[in-house]
Amino acid sequence: MKNIDKKKQIASDWFKKLQVLICSELESIEKKYGKKHSKFKAVRWNRDKKGSDNLGGGEMRLLRGKVFEKAGVNTSTVFGKLSKNLSGKIPGTDKNIEFWASGISLVIHPYSPKIPAIHMNTRFIVTQKSWFGGGIDITPTDKNSKESKKIANFFHAELKKTCDFYKIGCYEKYKKWCDEYFFLPHRNESRGLGGIFFDYLNSDVWNEDMEFVKNIGKTFTKTYKSIVNDTAKLSWNDNDKKLQNFRRSRYVEFNLLYDRGTKFGLETDGNIEAIFMSLPPSASW
Amino acid sequence: MKNIDKKKQIASDWFKKLQVLICSELESIEKKYGKKHSKFKAVRWNRDKKGSDNLGGGEMRLLRGKVFEKAGVNTSTVFGKLSKNLSGKIPGTDKNIEFWASGISLVIHPYSPKIPAIHMNTRFIVTQKSWFGGGIDITPTDKNSKESKKIANFFHAELKKTCDFYKIGCYEKYKKWCDEYFFLPHRNESRGLGGIFFDYLNSDVWNEDMEFVKNIGKTFTKTYKSIVNDTAKLSWNDNDKKLQNFRRSRYVEFNLLYDRGTKFGLETDGNIEAIFMSLPPSASW
Repeated sequence: MKNIDKKKQIASDWFKKLQVLICSELESIEKKYGKKHSKFKAVRWNRDKKGSDNLGGGEMRLLRGKVFEKAGVNTSTVFGKLSKNLSGKIPGTDKNIEFWASGISLVIHPYSPKIPAIHMNTRFIVTQKSWFGGGIDITPTDKNSKESKKIANFFHAELKKTCDFYKIGCYEKYKKWCDEYFFLPHRNESRGLGGIFFDYLNSDVWNEDMEFVKNIGKTFTKTYKSIVNDTAKLSWNDNDKKLQNFRRSRYVEFNLLYDRGTKFGLETDGNIEAIFMSLPPSASW
Repeated sequence: MKNIDKKKQIASDWFKKLQVLICSELESIEKKYGKKHSKFKAVRWNRDKKGSDNLGGGEMRLLRGKVFEKAGVNTSTVFGKLSKNLSGKIPGTDKNIEFWASGISLVIHPYSPKIPAIHMNTRFIVTQKSWFGGGIDITPTDKNSKESKKIANFFHAELKKTCDFYKIGCYEKYKKWCDEYFFLPHRNESRGLGGIFFDYLNSDVWNEDMEFVKNIGKTFTKTYKSIVNDTAKLSWNDNDKKLQNFRRSRYVEFNLLYDRGTKFGLETDGNIEAIFMSLPPSASW
């Protein structure tokens, strides 16, 4: 593959840069609406249990604040040989089990049930093939309220713009993919109000794919900031909080039963705290 | 197989009888220690979505009380053809995918962090082979406290008696099996303080196997009653409650990531509420 080392560098540098930008934005929001100025705590980890960087690693950043009850923003760049369980199941690994993967993943569980939870992840994977994957989706407490639908409409309109800029028609495809992916078959219900999801993105012009992935990160920051500004001061009651804990239980079910990222993390000996940072601060069954 | 219909009847009758006995015992404890006299609510379900009894079904009983924050005691008797995913993976289904399964399953999450959570399950499965399976295990909030270790010692001693009565040496085998089964590899930790676990139990004398399974049910009632009596009045603080929510998060992780019963239930179109009744009323990550 042409210039693959350079591409790896550009992608992983971007994910790290985006992590810094996003954490800084979220801290500003905490400062604006939270009573105290909560900050992210960063922890570096290596995949090699002995501590070397030979298998890669990552940096998790976690904030437990007043606005964001739990916000995890993680980056990782991991490489080496795939486990037996995964080899052959990932494109380009049927004859050679070497892999390289870099990405950013964030999940935010706000304290107020009026602010939707959000997830974003973008990644660049290299085996004997190479591709981008990712997605962003929103999970309001009450999926059926007028407020939530209004938020979702705004969110989807912004995502459509970002997608259209990349390739006309891809929003519809990635929205459908998202609806299919973030679905709990055992409950016959969606996890939230959707967004976009894509994988195996490998068009003729790598730079355009990279730019699309960058723009998703920027769209996240812009739209979520706006959503939080619109909802942070709304009042809520015990019933809203109960419904939030119910919604969070579905989030847990999805992440532990179906999420590919969780499975990939567990299968590749990823850092447990980083993998499970997506789980909500509380949930009720 | 000899007298298989009679065996099915005896086993499923016992599971139903035990359900009534256990719910009655737990309600007595609620009456004794709870402020109000909370009762179990029963819901019948059929596996056939159209409502017929052609594929079997079950009865879930759920109590949300003052002593037992959430106690689920379920029985089910289900039959029909295995899904493609399961056929061949279960003994006696490589050539014929008909199955019949009956069992009782209970999980109790007490409100007080001083009372351990407990799980018990016994079942009789019939394919082209037939066998019993089951287990019982205890999960105190603080696995390392003296109190918890004392409770676990008592619990294990009672289980050993029940096992010895069935077959000398089987306690050690089933205890080891339990330790191996209720283990979270991603955390490198056990779910609780163990108990016994067994599967594919099919000795020469069916009646002895059935009696062993019955005795496990009786041992549950006797030992748990005693444990609750010893712990229900102990005082606890916010830190104990936090640790309980932490312990419960591990319970969720185990049940959604690894538990065979959950997987079997999902794969056989079991009732979702019944399958997930094991999940704790609250959990924190």
